[in-house]
Amino acid sequence: MTALRPWTETRVVGTARPRIDGYDRVSGSAVYARDLVLPDMLYAAFARCPHAHARVRKVDTRRAETMPGVQAVLTGDSPGAKLPFYFGEKGPLSWLFDPHCRFEGEEVAAVAAETQAQAEAAARAIEVDYEELPFVVDMERALKPDAPAVHEGGNRAGEPDRYQRGDVARGFAEAEAVVEMTFRTPCAIHTPMETHGSVARWEGDRLTIWDTNQGVFDLRSAYAQFFQLPLSQVRVASAYMGGGFGSKLEPGKYTLAAALLARQTGRPVKLFLSREESFLCVGNRPPNVLTLRAGARKDGTLTALQLTSLGTGGAYPEGTSAGYLVSDLYTCPHVKIEETAVYVNAGKARAFRAPGFPQGAWALEQTMDALALKLGMDPLALRLKNVPTVSQRRNNLPFTSTGLRQCLEDGAKAFGWAEARRRPRAAGPLVRGIGVAAGMWGWDGEARGSAIVRFIADGSVSLTTGASDIGTGTKTVLAMVVSEELGVPPEKIQVDHADTATTPYAVLSGGSQTTHINAPIVRAAALDVKQQLMVMAAEQLKVEEGALELRDGVIVATNAPDKKVALKDLAALQEQQVLVGVGRRDPHPKGKVALPFVVHFAEVEVDTRTGEVRVLRLLGAHDSGRVMSRLSYENQVFGGMTMGIGFGMTEGRVLDRNTGKMANANWHDYKIPTAMDVPAEPVCLPVDPHDTECNSVGAKGLGEPATIPTAAAIANAVFDATGIRISETPINPTQMARLLAERRVGR
Amino acid sequence: MTALRPWTETRVVGTARPRIDGYDRVSGSAVYARDLVLPDMLYAAFARCPHAHARVRKVDTRRAETMPGVQAVLTGDSPGAKLPFYFGEKGPLSWLFDPHCRFEGEEVAAVAAETQAQAEAAARAIEVDYEELPFVVDMERALKPDAPAVHEGGNRAGEPDRYQRGDVARGFAEAEAVVEMTFRTPCAIHTPMETHGSVARWEGDRLTIWDTNQGVFDLRSAYAQFFQLPLSQVRVASAYMGGGFGSKLEPGKYTLAAALLARQTGRPVKLFLSREESFLCVGNRPPNVLTLRAGARKDGTLTALQLTSLGTGGAYPEGTSAGYLVSDLYTCPHVKIEETAVYVNAGKARAFRAPGFPQGAWALEQTMDALALKLGMDPLALRLKNVPTVSQRRNNLPFTSTGLRQCLEDGAKAFGWAEARRRPRAAGPLVRGIGVAAGMWGWDGEARGSAIVRFIADGSVSLTTGASDIGTGTKTVLAMVVSEELGVPPEKIQVDHADTATTPYAVLSGGSQTTHINAPIVRAAALDVKQQLMVMAAEQLKVEEGALELRDGVIVATNAPDKKVALKDLAALQEQQVLVGVGRRDPHPKGKVALPFVVHFAEVEVDTRTGEVRVLRLLGAHDSGRVMSRLSYENQVFGGMTMGIGFGMTEGRVLDRNTGKMANANWHDYKIPTAMDVPAEPVCLPVDPHDTECNSVGAKGLGEPATIPTAAAIANAVFDATGIRISETPINPTQMARLLAERRVGR
Repeated sequence: MTALRPWTETRVVGTARPRIDGYDRVSGSAVYARDLVLPDMLYAAFARCPHAHARVRKVDTRRAETMPGVQAVLTGDSPGAKLPFYFGEKGPLSWLFDPHCRFEGEEVAAVAAETQAQAEAAARAIEVDYEELPFVVDMERALKPDAPAVHEGGNRAGEPDRYQRGDVARGFAEAEAVVEMTFRTPCAIHTPMETHGSVARWEGDRLTIWDTNQGVFDLRSAYAQFFQLPLSQVRVASAYMGGGFGSKLEPGKYTLAAALLARQTGRPVKLFLSREESFLCVGNRPPNVLTLRAGARKDGTLTALQLTSLGTGGAYPEGTSAGYLVSDLYTCPHVKIEETAVYVNAGKARAFRAPGFPQGAWALEQTMDALALKLGMDPLALRLKNVPTVSQRRNNLPFTSTGLRQCLEDGAKAFGWAEARRRPRAAGPLVRGIGVAAGMWGWDGEARGSAIVRFIADGSVSLTTGASDIGTGTKTVLAMVVSEELGVPPEKIQVDHADTATTPYAVLSGGSQTTHINAPIVRAAALDVKQQLMVMAAEQLKVEEGALELRDGVIVATNAPDKKVALKDLAALQEQQVLVGVGRRDPHPKGKVALPFVVHFAEVEVDTRTGEVRVLRLLGAHDSGRVMSRLSYENQVFGGMTMGIGFGMTEGRVLDRNTGKMANANWHDYKIPTAMDVPAEPVCLPVDPHDTECNSVGAKGLGEPATIPTAAAIANAVFDATGIRISETPINPTQMARLLAERRVGR
Repeated sequence: MTALRPWTETRVVGTARPRIDGYDRVSGSAVYARDLVLPDMLYAAFARCPHAHARVRKVDTRRAETMPGVQAVLTGDSPGAKLPFYFGEKGPLSWLFDPHCRFEGEEVAAVAAETQAQAEAAARAIEVDYEELPFVVDMERALKPDAPAVHEGGNRAGEPDRYQRGDVARGFAEAEAVVEMTFRTPCAIHTPMETHGSVARWEGDRLTIWDTNQGVFDLRSAYAQFFQLPLSQVRVASAYMGGGFGSKLEPGKYTLAAALLARQTGRPVKLFLSREESFLCVGNRPPNVLTLRAGARKDGTLTALQLTSLGTGGAYPEGTSAGYLVSDLYTCPHVKIEETAVYVNAGKARAFRAPGFPQGAWALEQTMDALALKLGMDPLALRLKNVPTVSQRRNNLPFTSTGLRQCLEDGAKAFGWAEARRRPRAAGPLVRGIGVAAGMWGWDGEARGSAIVRFIADGSVSLTTGASDIGTGTKTVLAMVVSEELGVPPEKIQVDHADTATTPYAVLSGGSQTTHINAPIVRAAALDVKQQLMVMAAEQLKVEEGALELRDGVIVATNAPDKKVALKDLAALQEQQVLVGVGRRDPHPKGKVALPFVVHFAEVEVDTRTGEVRVLRLLGAHDSGRVMSRLSYENQVFGGMTMGIGFGMTEGRVLDRNTGKMANANWHDYKIPTAMDVPAEPVCLPVDPHDTECNSVGAKGLGEPATIPTAAAIANAVFDATGIRISETPINPTQMARLLAERRVGR
């Protein structure tokens, strides 16, 4: 397939338009998986281990089975329930219902009953005899020889993750300034608005899962494997979904339990987690301890970066690396990274918006500031000195575009960086400071999938795509692409999506690839339909096909404007009723890498009496290529910044060292930012380097970059205001008050 | 698009396989529209006029509005409810809620409430002040000058329907034998297992209708027009449906009322009719009075046919013609037909399995027998004498195949016609007789639509078609077509269908066109995918693409069997995950007509003491081209014969002349045949004339021919047994006892 020509100008793409499904979402008429009610449907609930570490001696379900409304009880001994669930390097590490419970909240049994309340009551009535085991929830303690073992074979989760280029010893020898610091990042919980859960139904050997997930096709593969079914016999549908942030990419035990209970009872089963359950067992951002050493010449040229880190994915294997950004954001010849992962008695981590990158930015971008201070340079100038043009991590392949410089320069200008730097610092209890931090994202997506555009005889359009709209506006963006090519207003385009039964394959919605990969595919499908219309019109008008244009529902001969035919008068279209167009994957550009860049600027005010930090201003300068939909773009940037504030200032799982249990597994004690915690008028500054190579629409990823550097920019601003380096999140009054007192700031 | 080569041999097509969705249907796990439950859904019911003819003076909804659970009451005065519904030649003839009620059961108002019982109670509580009007329910009386007028302008429903070829006067002059008889056929009710109804939901300006219907795309057009919406903003879905027989092709007032109530309340609304309601207002087969005169030469050559008929579509316009079959089944140079339609105060007719054809066959095939008797010929020989090769009704275009002769000959042989004719007639109270009747169907479908086949990397397949499976096995037949081409077993093919949101356009499932039109389209889609697989394999194996074959999941070079690649090792497929293939319409053969033929043979036993008639044997010899699925084919034939028994022997709407109301609007009093009424072992004899021209799969229509001649064959058998010509249905003990007494048969 030859690549399509990029757009030179657009009429619809890039404009600010409301979501095509905004009304449905806001009015409550959208049916999320959680809203689904099927005839004869049962409700299910889990019995969970209340201990951080325990062995199940016996599960007694007799009382539960006799309770009102109970239709089925599922334990590890039920037929078909011994499904391997988490895997290590040498095979299954645990089971759907594992008698060895490795964290508080691990699933022990499940119940299906006529109502949700009956299911929960019966789950509570399951009597489990536990042998409590010693536990470890602290990752540094987990490495000690006497630490309780989460798994046989000890707490090291495989070999350390290592990366090296050049020779850091030489790099540090060449350095004229070196800094080294240790940082800590929190274990953040995804906690999307809609909790995790599924509705499962069997029709003979065909399984349907109505789900809240980020990729119906990948999950179909997973469930087909669990139940040994051909892919065509498993349907996974996810019409509306209420956020995922990476936590809804993996198969869920709730889905398996719902499917098993449905098979056992011959009835559909709904199993949705409570808010509290969702804190314990469906993922988190792994916490890291990062020690970063950086060296540079006097002019700011980086010579060496060395990172050692420790992280934990909880009780089961999960990537905890934070090194990619450290190794690829700036030009640096000598880099060495070693990252160790350990098991602790806590819920397993999952991919969380830019896995590892906010952690890496927290360390790298504060270290860059420290280095700038040591060199006596403007932090902005130090960054500009080291802007790369190739991906050192990917065989030095050039970027299709590198907007990092433009983000730094245009962002600084819009933020008023130079003026703010010159402004005298306030005396008195309220001090202000500014900070900057940069970032990039390291994945350009899987170039596969297809889309179908159907052009209807009345001039309206139907788009069918397998892509999930996880709340980011994918449906709207893709409808705008169709609108651009076919001149049909987005509100006349019906979008159906994310249903393996009816939509073509699309990559999962994660890794900031959704628009980057799917928009070109959808464009190709629209152009396929357009081509069919042109052939029809050429035949009817008796002109050459290449000499026609589609404008406002009329096909006109470019050089003979009186030769024209309205779509409604296009005989072949009216006869055929619906034209079907197929778009297929747009290959990646050869020998290049298409990645987005980002720079965030922050201004904070610190109350030196109370330790309170207010974020006064935030500006996000983004190079994500073309702005496809202005409002969706801003929405991503503001959402990402808000999540960045949470990551840096308010969020963090608290595991009680005495019990091993989570102390803040709810929205009251686990604090996500609210409207009061974000600046009233954040600024979104898209920087478009007119990337004509990344794909046929010119868009790169956005969802993940938007949250990467926010926390680091705020920490740098706090340092600017107070001289205090906040190496450990959260930047909250508890920590600030202690640090301010220690350093006697403001006294 | 060039036509595909027809199959020479098949491995899957034509075999006897269970329905791919058989388990779902039989186990009750299939979700029909009636089973659908949406969150927050309301239930609705109609208030209906209890009089045969009345004018609404006032509708008082006050009491209903205050009843428990009531959320909305809809009358003709409600905003947006004044929708024109039935149309005459000069525009709207009536409205959704018409104050002039023209039959018992016409809709007057509707209510939506929290439960079905509440809705029905409130509908009963609506107080309507009616002015009762004189009525007419007898179609012959309706033509009298003093008859009450159903519509202003009188009871003639337009000009009579006329057809003529040759000169019947000359034809009858040339005849050496002439017979003339008058026949009556019943008003039969479709009464499918699942009654009519819809669930309607609005999301902003987008309307979704979950429905039980026979053509989602045609109904989408209708509802888009009612509500003035672009087609893309209306979704009509009909996953499973429980029979239609033609009664579910038209838009329903229940759908409009559900949609209006949903818009008024902002909640989804379900409105399904009760069994009793479904007898009154959603269609019937129009009753006819037919006078047929036929002339032939001594050798049996037909010279003239003249038909005059009267029919009624009830209170609103509907085709009542029964003449097509009379004019095209046999070669006859001189034909004249005049058919008059009148209005009466009764529910409107709708297309019913082969509209007009069983009526025509009832008259023509009994007349042929009478003519044979007069000529002293074997009834079979008379028919064989007049087998056509061209469609006289369609400009003498040749048929792609005419299996009528083969049906007569092979059917007679298999039935033992000659032997049975020679058998001496029994003396005594139980007498036996045999009969034959032929038929044809007059429509070869609309050649339009598309289908999508998606080939999944694990070798399973997904087929997406807009066609409705109205219970006839369409999904299974189409899956077998895909299986044939791609070697994937039907049970690994997921079929999704009949949803305007996600499937490509397909013609409605009616007129026996579903398989005839869609199977070639689906075949083309499968071949599109196959072609993509071949290109991939040719590249990987480095061979010419034309020299490859797909066998059992492996692509092999025809001339070098060691050059092969399994689909699971086909790198490009595994990378692309899913291949999308599109199939488009197969054009009709030029200058030819593709129509099916049928001959039914019957043996009956008449108890001359009671008038009871038992059908001992039935054989259906069918030329519907290729047998696509042996079990579905038999199912159609046996179902059609059973319906033919109902048409001839048990069914008929009874309108009380004193009240104008239907006396048997339920399954107790309106008798459809049960297992006790059909022969234990009916015979299905497919006659395949290897039609390579009708389309790329060789199949013609079957659903309708299967019911056309059954009743006539039974009537001819009764004549053979008793010498009594049953001109008027039903052949039941009431009528038989009277006729037997009059003729003193068996005494």
